Amino acid sequence: MSDIITEISRGILRVELNRPAQKNAMTAGMYTNLAGIFGEADMDESVRVVLWHGAGDAFCAGNDIVDFLKNPPGPGESPQSALINAFIAFEKPIVAAVQGVAIGGGTTMLTHCDFVYAGENAKFKLPFIDLGLVPEFGSSFSIPASVGHLRAAEMFLLGEPFTAARRQNSAS
Amino acid sequence: MSDIITEISRGILRVELNRPAQKNAMTAGMYTNLAGIFGEADMDESVRVVLWHGAGDAFCAGNDIVDFLKNPPGPGESPQSALINAFIAFEKPIVAAVQGVAIGGGTTMLTHCDFVYAGENAKFKLPFIDLGLVPEFGSSFSIPASVGHLRAAEMFLLGEPFTAARRQNSAS
Amino acid sequence: MSDIITEISRGILRVELNRPAQKNAMTAGMYTNLAGIFGEADMDESVRVVLWHGAGDAFCAGNDIVDFLKNPPGPGESPQSALINAFIAFEKPIVAAVQGVAIGGGTTMLTHCDFVYAGENAKFKLPFIDLGLVPEFGSSFSIPASVGHLRAAEMFLLGEPFTAARRQNSAS
Repeated sequence: MSDIITEISRGILRVELNRPAQKNAMTAGMYTNLAGIFGEADMDESVRVVLWHGAGDAFCAGNDIVDFLKNPPGPGESPQSALINAFIAFEKPIVAAVQGVAIGGGTTMLTHCDFVYAGENAKFKLPFIDLGLVPEFGSSFSIPASVGHLRAAEMFLLGEPFTAARRQNSAS
Repeated sequence: MSDIITEISRGILRVELNRPAQKNAMTAGMYTNLAGIFGEADMDESVRVVLWHGAGDAFCAGNDIVDFLKNPPGPGESPQSALINAFIAFEKPIVAAVQGVAIGGGTTMLTHCDFVYAGENAKFKLPFIDLGLVPEFGSSFSIPASVGHLRAAEMFLLGEPFTAARRQNSAS
Repeated sequence: MSDIITEISRGILRVELNRPAQKNAMTAGMYTNLAGIFGEADMDESVRVVLWHGAGDAFCAGNDIVDFLKNPPGPGESPQSALINAFIAFEKPIVAAVQGVAIGGGTTMLTHCDFVYAGENAKFKLPFIDLGLVPEFGSSFSIPASVGHLRAAEMFLLGEPFTAARRQNSAS
């Protein structure tokens, strides 16, 4: 079974992150794969829109740390950079359907989507402060642009989980 | 009767779009007129502030398509560009009072106002997706800057009507 | 008793504006002092975070006008500019705890904080319109960036007091 399942039906490309036992945590291979899927979908006239979701009870637990340590970024374009470039180049709407955890990259990747619909059980988290890492995927720009500096500071500097309702009410 | 009525009283320039039978849809002549009205008001020391509204039960149904087809933009500055330039140059506050429909340009022109007060029956709509047109009056910049990318995407890519309450709660 | 009290405890630098009889209005000396406090705190490894508040029942009534008239800005860097530069250079989180009035500079200084928690009795006001002054501390940029042009226009052009609840609900 592939780590990412795709299916085209009536103009909709469904993309499913499919590592439910790992809460769909992203491996290097999955970033590369996903970048390729968006690249192809952009040229494929049978694709009008992307519906993106996770298998099982989660959207995405972020980077798979075990895989990341085994496959550290080397010289050249990293798998993560390939994906961000694919997002930037992509010209069709991406609709994300989020349930359960969306942690780290699982949240920041969403900032490149055009529609993000989250279930009441969706739990977002930007744990970069705990990891001593700079927030990735352009999120230190996109999240303040979206919710203002104050609310973004709360999300990034506290690193506490938040819900979609909190996100909605957070005019900052 | 003019398509645009103006009246100065106690420092307030009242500007009324006056084609109620057409829900105050804008003709080429009205764009040119309105640009001239703002240009003069900016220099007129008896004008301190502009109050802008529509006649009848609507604010503005946007571009008058019949007139637009009869008077397509030619070379040189279009009537629409003249108006946007007048908005940008205008140094006094514009207060918009919105009731009923505010569609297309009827919504995007509002992004150049300083105060927009809308009645509960006000209905906004950005139908550019249905028309296959790029959103005008700088609205693809100003609306995301105001409500964030996610909510702006909903407004532009779905093209569905929204109310002022929806707009208010939409921290994006 | 100093006009600004500081105390370091368990990594937290507590900064208290301490002119309660004047609602902690800022004198030229206090701006200079505060700039120095932030400058030192940035280099002091025993400081991890700043907690900033006012003495008595107010956060800060803004510029002390009597003092300002006695000590007008001369050539060179003004005390206010020294403070804004200190804010920009400061690399640690500033948490502001606001109760009572936060007027003029008492509000605009907050736009350089990372967390602003306000009590229900907190009253903000941007009275620059009444004074015929350009809003300071970069607030004509930072406030629209945070709440959008429409709500910022209301705050700046009306100059009326607003509460934290209003600020929260103001998606612009």
